[in-house]
Amino acid sequence: MIMKPRRTGEIAIQLPEAGDASVHFLGRLRTPWKTLGECPKTRDGRANAESVIEVDEPYAQGLTDVALFSHLIVLYWLDESPRDLIVQHPSHLDTPRGVFALRSPARPNPIGHAVVEIVRVEGNHIVVRGLDARDGTPLIDLKPYFPSIDAFPDARRP
Amino acid sequence: MIMKPRRTGEIAIQLPEAGDASVHFLGRLRTPWKTLGECPKTRDGRANAESVIEVDEPYAQGLTDVALFSHLIVLYWLDESPRDLIVQHPSHLDTPRGVFALRSPARPNPIGHAVVEIVRVEGNHIVVRGLDARDGTPLIDLKPYFPSIDAFPDARRP
Repeated sequence: MIMKPRRTGEIAIQLPEAGDASVHFLGRLRTPWKTLGECPKTRDGRANAESVIEVDEPYAQGLTDVALFSHLIVLYWLDESPRDLIVQHPSHLDTPRGVFALRSPARPNPIGHAVVEIVRVEGNHIVVRGLDARDGTPLIDLKPYFPSIDAFPDARRP
Repeated sequence: MIMKPRRTGEIAIQLPEAGDASVHFLGRLRTPWKTLGECPKTRDGRANAESVIEVDEPYAQGLTDVALFSHLIVLYWLDESPRDLIVQHPSHLDTPRGVFALRSPARPNPIGHAVVEIVRVEGNHIVVRGLDARDGTPLIDLKPYFPSIDAFPDARRP
């Protein structure tokens, strides 16, 4: 866990010692970025880069028919992120903001979310475009993207 | 955990006894559906129903500025789902399909995903439309929805 220096207005909480449920790592993300510092900060930086989602056995059997879809929702475990920063002050904002109004990797449950385009599926490897995570990041779920329930192009953000 | 009877072609795996990481429950979803059996199976069934996302202290401090967004990504823990069914045969399909090509609640990490519309925020309660989970389902994350990276209205599905 990398602890960043706190900025004015940021709030850290004490998390419970025990967790309520456990996750299994199902594989890992193979990306061009070897450290957090190298990961792209903008959509343009990651849009065209190809990455590979490597799914371990016995989970790889669950990839049957994945190639019928053009896009996937990828959930991954941000294993280098602090979990205690509940209010954060990103450098692009004038004031601190709650973690649930931010896409920051630092969150109580450090689960990353990306919608990726499938380039091709080769055995237990899925070649995709759209990831921005560090190479080696643990995979925790893959879901087919359904535009009918997942796409809200007119959603409003500040 | 509710074990459904297996259908022909379904494959169950043995999951590791120990998990790789742990999640904290941050609150719960208050929905109109008291049991899994009552939960709506279609988008129409849930589109207009209002639900409440209850965020516990001390996590509720993380809601600052959530109301600036119109939509949220909600991640929740499907605590009644089996985790071992890696190939499943839903009744609407002709053949079995891998779990990563299905939005089934039964998955190795039983994380539910919904994009919801914010109706209003009242203290630690967010009134939303678009949830289809059982009342009392544990909340594990909330993320603001960014159409630039989350909306792919032309994504293809079979």
